Amino acid sequence: MTARCRARDLGLAPGLFRPGTHNAITDVAGVSVGHTTLIEGDAIRTGVTAILPHPGNPFADRVPAGLSVINGFGKLAGATQVAELGELETPIVLTNTLAVGRAVEALVDWTLARNPEAVSVNAVVGETNDGRLNDIHARGVTGAHVLDALDGATDGPVEEGCVGAGTGTMAFGFKGGIGTSSRVLPEALGAWTLGALVQANYGGVLTMDGIPVGRELGRWYLKEHTDRGDADGSVMVVIATDAPLSDRNLTRLATRAMAGLARTGAAFSDGSGDYALAFSTHPGVRRTAERRAHQAIVADWPNDRMSPLFVAAAEAVEEAVLNALTMATTVVGSDGRTGRRAKGEAIDLDALRAVLARHGRTA
Amino acid sequence: MTARCRARDLGLAPGLFRPGTHNAITDVAGVSVGHTTLIEGDAIRTGVTAILPHPGNPFADRVPAGLSVINGFGKLAGATQVAELGELETPIVLTNTLAVGRAVEALVDWTLARNPEAVSVNAVVGETNDGRLNDIHARGVTGAHVLDALDGATDGPVEEGCVGAGTGTMAFGFKGGIGTSSRVLPEALGAWTLGALVQANYGGVLTMDGIPVGRELGRWYLKEHTDRGDADGSVMVVIATDAPLSDRNLTRLATRAMAGLARTGAAFSDGSGDYALAFSTHPGVRRTAERRAHQAIVADWPNDRMSPLFVAAAEAVEEAVLNALTMATTVVGSDGRTGRRAKGEAIDLDALRAVLARHGRTA
Amino acid sequence: MTARCRARDLGLAPGLFRPGTHNAITDVAGVSVGHTTLIEGDAIRTGVTAILPHPGNPFADRVPAGLSVINGFGKLAGATQVAELGELETPIVLTNTLAVGRAVEALVDWTLARNPEAVSVNAVVGETNDGRLNDIHARGVTGAHVLDALDGATDGPVEEGCVGAGTGTMAFGFKGGIGTSSRVLPEALGAWTLGALVQANYGGVLTMDGIPVGRELGRWYLKEHTDRGDADGSVMVVIATDAPLSDRNLTRLATRAMAGLARTGAAFSDGSGDYALAFSTHPGVRRTAERRAHQAIVADWPNDRMSPLFVAAAEAVEEAVLNALTMATTVVGSDGRTGRRAKGEAIDLDALRAVLARHGRTA
Amino acid sequence: MTARCRARDLGLAPGLFRPGTHNAITDVAGVSVGHTTLIEGDAIRTGVTAILPHPGNPFADRVPAGLSVINGFGKLAGATQVAELGELETPIVLTNTLAVGRAVEALVDWTLARNPEAVSVNAVVGETNDGRLNDIHARGVTGAHVLDALDGATDGPVEEGCVGAGTGTMAFGFKGGIGTSSRVLPEALGAWTLGALVQANYGGVLTMDGIPVGRELGRWYLKEHTDRGDADGSVMVVIATDAPLSDRNLTRLATRAMAGLARTGAAFSDGSGDYALAFSTHPGVRRTAERRAHQAIVADWPNDRMSPLFVAAAEAVEEAVLNALTMATTVVGSDGRTGRRAKGEAIDLDALRAVLARHGRTA
Repeated sequence: MTARCRARDLGLAPGLFRPGTHNAITDVAGVSVGHTTLIEGDAIRTGVTAILPHPGNPFADRVPAGLSVINGFGKLAGATQVAELGELETPIVLTNTLAVGRAVEALVDWTLARNPEAVSVNAVVGETNDGRLNDIHARGVTGAHVLDALDGATDGPVEEGCVGAGTGTMAFGFKGGIGTSSRVLPEALGAWTLGALVQANYGGVLTMDGIPVGRELGRWYLKEHTDRGDADGSVMVVIATDAPLSDRNLTRLATRAMAGLARTGAAFSDGSGDYALAFSTHPGVRRTAERRAHQAIVADWPNDRMSPLFVAAAEAVEEAVLNALTMATTVVGSDGRTGRRAKGEAIDLDALRAVLARHGRTA
Repeated sequence: MTARCRARDLGLAPGLFRPGTHNAITDVAGVSVGHTTLIEGDAIRTGVTAILPHPGNPFADRVPAGLSVINGFGKLAGATQVAELGELETPIVLTNTLAVGRAVEALVDWTLARNPEAVSVNAVVGETNDGRLNDIHARGVTGAHVLDALDGATDGPVEEGCVGAGTGTMAFGFKGGIGTSSRVLPEALGAWTLGALVQANYGGVLTMDGIPVGRELGRWYLKEHTDRGDADGSVMVVIATDAPLSDRNLTRLATRAMAGLARTGAAFSDGSGDYALAFSTHPGVRRTAERRAHQAIVADWPNDRMSPLFVAAAEAVEEAVLNALTMATTVVGSDGRTGRRAKGEAIDLDALRAVLARHGRTA
Repeated sequence: MTARCRARDLGLAPGLFRPGTHNAITDVAGVSVGHTTLIEGDAIRTGVTAILPHPGNPFADRVPAGLSVINGFGKLAGATQVAELGELETPIVLTNTLAVGRAVEALVDWTLARNPEAVSVNAVVGETNDGRLNDIHARGVTGAHVLDALDGATDGPVEEGCVGAGTGTMAFGFKGGIGTSSRVLPEALGAWTLGALVQANYGGVLTMDGIPVGRELGRWYLKEHTDRGDADGSVMVVIATDAPLSDRNLTRLATRAMAGLARTGAAFSDGSGDYALAFSTHPGVRRTAERRAHQAIVADWPNDRMSPLFVAAAEAVEEAVLNALTMATTVVGSDGRTGRRAKGEAIDLDALRAVLARHGRTA
Repeated sequence: MTARCRARDLGLAPGLFRPGTHNAITDVAGVSVGHTTLIEGDAIRTGVTAILPHPGNPFADRVPAGLSVINGFGKLAGATQVAELGELETPIVLTNTLAVGRAVEALVDWTLARNPEAVSVNAVVGETNDGRLNDIHARGVTGAHVLDALDGATDGPVEEGCVGAGTGTMAFGFKGGIGTSSRVLPEALGAWTLGALVQANYGGVLTMDGIPVGRELGRWYLKEHTDRGDADGSVMVVIATDAPLSDRNLTRLATRAMAGLARTGAAFSDGSGDYALAFSTHPGVRRTAERRAHQAIVADWPNDRMSPLFVAAAEAVEEAVLNALTMATTVVGSDGRTGRRAKGEAIDLDALRAVLARHGRTA
């Protein structure tokens, strides 16, 4: 089998804008990502991914944030407070569906350890269901795994594919996982950087930069005309930017994640929890203790100039999903419902290259 | 000190409609409530309250439900899925702010034990912050406590005041807690029963059936003209009815909880997580496995006839809060922030009776 | 019959904070209000009220704004754009239900006359249904009436009762109308001014500063246990403040209007369109052409200090409704459905004084 | 120049499902569409399109409906009541941005003429801004034009391109207009029919069934790296289905419109009002006078079986946009801002065929 590579190495470079240095969410200065990958015995194929908005104390120095609930079949913790206050006060943790409770617990622990005076913590934990490859009933994720992901977070290149919260996920009938990408706007449009990270575990008819890959590889949702769940799963999207956006404009930015997902062929099925969270790292909008206690002066990028950021968000999300698929490797695990062996096949890159070539696309 | 009593025994009977047999949420047939009350050592003053919509398996036979987020400063787990699907698939669990993670975990356990094939569980857990009387950092609530509340749930009269999730809560500067009330509509208006249960932990200027009790007892939010948090805390409201309501009309019903809260003098302050969940127990709207898999026939109570239910919801919520206050007893605990001894004084019923009498109100 | 007076002259002064100079929305500097009152023949009893956020061009210099839809049975024009962009680009016009179309048309005309280059105008027009006293089918309101209200707007005292968009409205079974009130926060809480104006046309069980006036005067919703519409009608609330609030915090502020309405005994019935719009006049948040085109610096009052403003909003809304009732005079008109004569009796101030006195309340 | 044709005649047939008889929203039995096309002098290039949900009285026999506001920069009238009550009580009228007021007025007239007892009418009027080709300030649309569109509505094939509310619209830098499409689900998935109609006036990077047509024809948003408005404009989407959906599931269905738009390359720009309304014609969910007055029995298609309908909605919306573009013809009109001559060039079908052929796509 050929070595895995990123979508861009296959000639897939959706959109108008160029990526940043690492083509990763960490191109937004200060953002770091950590993974805990759990592959144990025959059945545990799961993990945790943590995204930290800046190197400081996120509870003390809060980032404005917005949430878009595209399809709310999911267990995202922290949703209503993010929407009400327009801010994050913890890192974002991603894990599997049944681990949200203990991830909340651990994220509270982590925050209290750094802020002993806190009595209220809005832990933000997203999830997708990796129960097709992971014995989700075994509850493999512990609080320590969450702390490991938080403590191990780094800037620079981000590991993709079967890592962290993407260890056991599936997408479009192939092995899915974690993917990331970024965009840098030209000077005339603000020169902002925007990055996305996805936990891809959803279905539909796989489309890569417009090319009907799923159809040509013979694997798609509703192929057999049965509507029982084969598109389900979910996707969590995290978007970071250094543009000084209000929480309202971050909410609007998060909404554009769905455009990127739609272009990958997402079915947006009933059982898919499709969420996007967006935050800004710009110091002019950071909610410091001072700004939270007194009348403040904040930076603001206006409505009228948001459109290029909207386009960039859709592009980065689309490419992040492609990366999740091309970087994932085949995983053999255990079906969470039946306990039987189950195989999540990575998309075959040779077959994929052949499809792309037929459509005139080469690296 | 006089024995505690319910608001109605003091002459406080807000609204137009009469209560049901127990003047409790359990007057809605099938609904049961369980409490785990934790009073340990000097510092643990907390607990768990569980509300079960019917005696069966709530994951298999789901009730339609609606959520109203009045002020989303809170950690309510399960919010987005309730809104998306319009249903509950677990009981509702209430506890303290920092215990949400483990309560989610326990509610998932409870559900999986009854539904071993499930791989996705939307645990609904609400909270308020009892850290003024409870050493919330001690994390006194465990999963076992949650299971105890669920397993101990009963119909009939509901214990109120310093029990379950209300053990350590404060309201309007007095000791708060759990309260409940119900209303039965006259035959011409549908003859439906509606009940409310509150976890009262919020502030403002206490008003009891229109009487300015807080002012007259010399205790109210902003008395000292400082805005630092003294109205904060939160309130979780649960409303049950046997009317066959759609999830949309349940959402509208939940919205009317705020009217009941407003009449008690709620400040609806920044830091108060004010939420209401409403569900219907009517068998004609129950989402059985059959109805979830095939085209179904469901009962529907129309928009045009919702208004009396809206009024009843406001009344029951108002009276539930009054009951929480008049049934609560003084609790001495520990401040969650400083660790120092703290006292939550119950409202003095003799003083209250005197205020009511001055306003011409006697039992 | 005694001369009409404001609620405060009857001893009704709800809440903690003191009103501003005129106890009117115009206490917020720069805000002006204009009325066109239409009383023609036997049947036309309607009108228009316009609220201008500042003396300049509202399309060029926009104010941030938030909208709360408490019960969306109404025809408010402009709702989605206010929510999306968080701003007003026109004055707010209030009128009757069937006049919204031509009021939109006129507000577009007014805006284009001042901004000839504009090709898109988000006219904000609210309404309530005055068809119990006004022959609403006669469509008495014209575009010219709307322009008159806009052009006649003044600061200073605001006419209340049966004027403008309140000419034909009813509230709680009595003649309703336009009412206004304001609050000034103490220095320690920010010293901000906040004002409210209501178009009161809704029902329930009239309560005045906690006193059950409706019950004691023998007139209330559901008295006859029939749910057919007698609480219906609607209420439009407009809130202005000089605090430098973000659109998100203005949305939260608007949400608190419902607390004021609830305290007046609102039924929040199915057919009542209950809406609140809030805007800020602070120059530091004004969206000038410059700020809409480039990265800007804006003022911000933090979440943590919003609570006193929330309390003030509820107070001002409550008192504005009381003023609408006590200032309204009896109107004889024509029922919009049947065409028959109909009488909207003003609340009898002598009877009201007697009720208040029984509750120990005197001016 | 070659004769215009529909997208399917060019080999563009997005998605999995087959269209209905006319590949139009009118494939949903009972739905009819009427256009008033206004081409007058040099400058009037606008019109009205009306969609009627069934041949009866829509005010008496209401259809359940849901609304999705993707980007709320628009003047859609009727939004809040559709969301609150989950129903339509009028046909849906589409027109230009500055004509919404008089279209509301006319739709109220039309409804009152058929329902003389009505005193409240929630007119639903959507719009996009055709001011790039139409002298929008001339206010060419009158109430009579709206009534003509309503009265002229027919079932069967639907005229597309530069007709009705699409007469003056632009899309992706080409002439846009009205487009429609439909899908029929296989028996195993419910055998439901779903149709979409779009008023396409938005921008981005035109993509047709995955093929980067805009890039290859050298015309796309942000080509010159300026963010000033060139993607703006808007899109109104109307979706009809004969599946017996609740208003909540219709809202979810409407949300999927964005997937279809995203696949055409929509920028979802700041200034684009992107809305989708969905309704069900199924008699089992029709809100008759009887069902609106008493406890009713209604049909319901469950959450668990919604996914194929979601996919069908995205497909029909995508193809409807393609049809709008391929059926539109070049229009020369007048720029609404400057009054200068302006040309809206239809996409060149020969050039388009060449692009498609390069991508292996032929009819």
